[in-house]
Amino acid sequence: MDLAPLREALSAGAVVEDADVIAAHSADHALFSPVGTARALVRAHSIEDVQATLRFAHEHRIPVVPQGSRTGLSGAANAVDGCLLLSLAKMDAIVGIDPAEGTCTVQPGVINQALKDALADHGLSYPPDPGSVAISSIGGNVATNAGGLCCVKYGVTADYVRRLRVVLADGSLTTLGRPTAKGVAGLGLAQLFVGSEGTLGVVVEVTLDVVPALPQPLTAIAVFPDSVSAAGTVSDYMTSGGKPALMEFIDGTTIGMINDYGDFGLPADAGAMLIVQADGDGTLSAASAELEAFAAAARANGASEVMHSEDPRDSELLIAARRAVSPASEKYAVAHGGGVLVDDVCVPRERLREMFAAVARVDAQFPDLTVGTCAHAGDGNLHPSIFFDAQDPHAVAAAEEAFALIMEAGLELGGTITGEHGVGVLKAGWLARELDPAARALHLAIKRAVDPRGILNPGKMLALLGE
Amino acid sequence: MDLAPLREALSAGAVVEDADVIAAHSADHALFSPVGTARALVRAHSIEDVQATLRFAHEHRIPVVPQGSRTGLSGAANAVDGCLLLSLAKMDAIVGIDPAEGTCTVQPGVINQALKDALADHGLSYPPDPGSVAISSIGGNVATNAGGLCCVKYGVTADYVRRLRVVLADGSLTTLGRPTAKGVAGLGLAQLFVGSEGTLGVVVEVTLDVVPALPQPLTAIAVFPDSVSAAGTVSDYMTSGGKPALMEFIDGTTIGMINDYGDFGLPADAGAMLIVQADGDGTLSAASAELEAFAAAARANGASEVMHSEDPRDSELLIAARRAVSPASEKYAVAHGGGVLVDDVCVPRERLREMFAAVARVDAQFPDLTVGTCAHAGDGNLHPSIFFDAQDPHAVAAAEEAFALIMEAGLELGGTITGEHGVGVLKAGWLARELDPAARALHLAIKRAVDPRGILNPGKMLALLGE
Repeated sequence: MDLAPLREALSAGAVVEDADVIAAHSADHALFSPVGTARALVRAHSIEDVQATLRFAHEHRIPVVPQGSRTGLSGAANAVDGCLLLSLAKMDAIVGIDPAEGTCTVQPGVINQALKDALADHGLSYPPDPGSVAISSIGGNVATNAGGLCCVKYGVTADYVRRLRVVLADGSLTTLGRPTAKGVAGLGLAQLFVGSEGTLGVVVEVTLDVVPALPQPLTAIAVFPDSVSAAGTVSDYMTSGGKPALMEFIDGTTIGMINDYGDFGLPADAGAMLIVQADGDGTLSAASAELEAFAAAARANGASEVMHSEDPRDSELLIAARRAVSPASEKYAVAHGGGVLVDDVCVPRERLREMFAAVARVDAQFPDLTVGTCAHAGDGNLHPSIFFDAQDPHAVAAAEEAFALIMEAGLELGGTITGEHGVGVLKAGWLARELDPAARALHLAIKRAVDPRGILNPGKMLALLGE
Repeated sequence: MDLAPLREALSAGAVVEDADVIAAHSADHALFSPVGTARALVRAHSIEDVQATLRFAHEHRIPVVPQGSRTGLSGAANAVDGCLLLSLAKMDAIVGIDPAEGTCTVQPGVINQALKDALADHGLSYPPDPGSVAISSIGGNVATNAGGLCCVKYGVTADYVRRLRVVLADGSLTTLGRPTAKGVAGLGLAQLFVGSEGTLGVVVEVTLDVVPALPQPLTAIAVFPDSVSAAGTVSDYMTSGGKPALMEFIDGTTIGMINDYGDFGLPADAGAMLIVQADGDGTLSAASAELEAFAAAARANGASEVMHSEDPRDSELLIAARRAVSPASEKYAVAHGGGVLVDDVCVPRERLREMFAAVARVDAQFPDLTVGTCAHAGDGNLHPSIFFDAQDPHAVAAAEEAFALIMEAGLELGGTITGEHGVGVLKAGWLARELDPAARALHLAIKRAVDPRGILNPGKMLALLGE
């Protein structure tokens, strides 16, 4: 395929055919996911670049893999053979902030934290805060419907998407969603593209709802002898009407990895811990009352220690410790055979005890593996990480089996195979197990209607739903 | 068409062919919208009834018009010639309330207020409160993505829909959406059915997010010499970070109608008024501060009077007055020629001044018409009602022209043709003007993919988008 016509249609330098550069852009942060060989990398500088790329790809039936910052954890941004990698990273302008309407409009390449910083200057906040908040783009957040720590009170990306400009498979540009606080003119198609992982179109502009700056929270931690008692605390506290602004779980294995990674002062001998924040909707007394209710639930579930602090530095240190799970896990993995698979199941909150018990059973079943779990516990969303010797085929097979058993347990408890990391290539086969036959058929019918030539991110989320 | 096979497939008595009963079920609350002649009414008692009806209709290519309580204002539930009216009103059970997960699951025929009452027993709340809250069903609320008075702070129906069970055009049953607080397994298809007005499938079960019981609000009113100064207050207050729990506008013409309808004590000589509630997220002092900020904005915009009360009875009387707009308008219409068209435009909050000025111009342009406007002002959502002599063809034509001019003004100000009432038959022609060409094509492609035989509510929302 001669790319000269594409090169001519795009901004200068947008098409990159250097093999090293392409290789460096061919995978996201997912581990053990297949990576194909791309034909070229296109760095879009404008909506017109995206349109021209898709027109060309559509005409010649070339696969297109849209990419933001490639920080995803499911391989959705990985190259497929012969594809054009379409990077939106250079389209990183904040188009506008509208305090009266309570919205901001951005290009897809804007980094989540950069947007938060810009909004703070206006006394505004965009709450969704995936673990990758410092490095992931809003476009990628929209494509994966990213979650994070604040979701338990403040919701996920989808809750903030008001309007999208999208380039469709044939290169046509459309504006979907509503221009106003409310609006019901036509189908709710903006939401169809949120979480579609690049399989339906390429998001080129995003209008997000924003909120007044979030209040400063109070923070508490509770230390438990085991995971199940921490899980019981979450279920009981949420059932009693708890409104935490953050409710994170870290098990003893992961605490060990964090302490080995940096000096965060986490309790070394804990079986598990919970970090909870409450902001009382801006009222200190209400936040204190929230944390008292949490402390009572923790003690009733056997917590050995419950502490809270009004010092923002203590709170920041705890959140930094939670955010260190990812690099600490990487450090541990490198030192222990190199293999790690990060799972992402979500169950109803009342089933958390059973889910943690199931993870413990999987851990016990495979002596060659180590399983460490952190969780956005208030949402019922667990991230068990499975560590293994990547050089040992038996260990690799065991890790994959453990990974599957955890998802199976989640489904059996009425949960989902992915709470926030997405399907990508990693869980494409599992999606068919979660969806019922009519839902599978509906997914395929809509995919065919929107992308009739199947050029958008083939072999990913929707690839294994059957016919 | 012989309906005997359908009758045999359904619950006893589900198929009604009595012409009077059919006629009584052939229209919703929309005025001046076409009403066809239905072939029969099906009163579904179960999901299986809905499936059997759609299988039969699909096989014989018979149009199906799904109906809840028929309280819609756009004719979406009106009969089309030869159709089966499919009423979900008898499926009115509350399936379950889950305080731990913060959800409830209901059949579509449950009345919104009945659900609110049931939730209150558990200390829970389902906020969306369309004007029809006492008579409209949750299924209808989902089908139209209903809004209401609380949206300005607590959002619309779509914000609360977690999971739907839907019967598709061919009678297949599917479960869409997520079972858990978070979930990204597959496309966000539940949201596709929210607001689809019966054109894509029939919702047979709804799982909604619920929240802790809403705090008791404080209430204030401000009286203005004219609509534009009230609109300016809204823009200024919202721009300064206002978080009202309710922010309703009533113009002088409509105040007159309300005072003529009942003794609500509204200021008779006002040009316009705003009713505002603040709940301070449960804190009285924060609610008071909110109302102080509102009062300051109102005075700065020329309010002649600002009052507030902590007595819940005063608040209830004011809300009752606001909810009396609909019957008061009907009473006025009956006494003044019988004709009324209720419009429903939504504009960005900063354009409210211009929008009210545009409505005033339309009012002045047609001396034979009376225009009275209420508005969910905090959302930028206006309901100008056009009153006219239904027996006078010139007045009817003028009313239709005024109705169109108001939508045109809304679009020109960056707004939408419908904030919450929906498209139905009333605005099907206008939808094509709001959507861009690619969005129109996308709507049609998805409609064809999901309902290939076009049996679901034909001639309504998606009928005039062209090919």
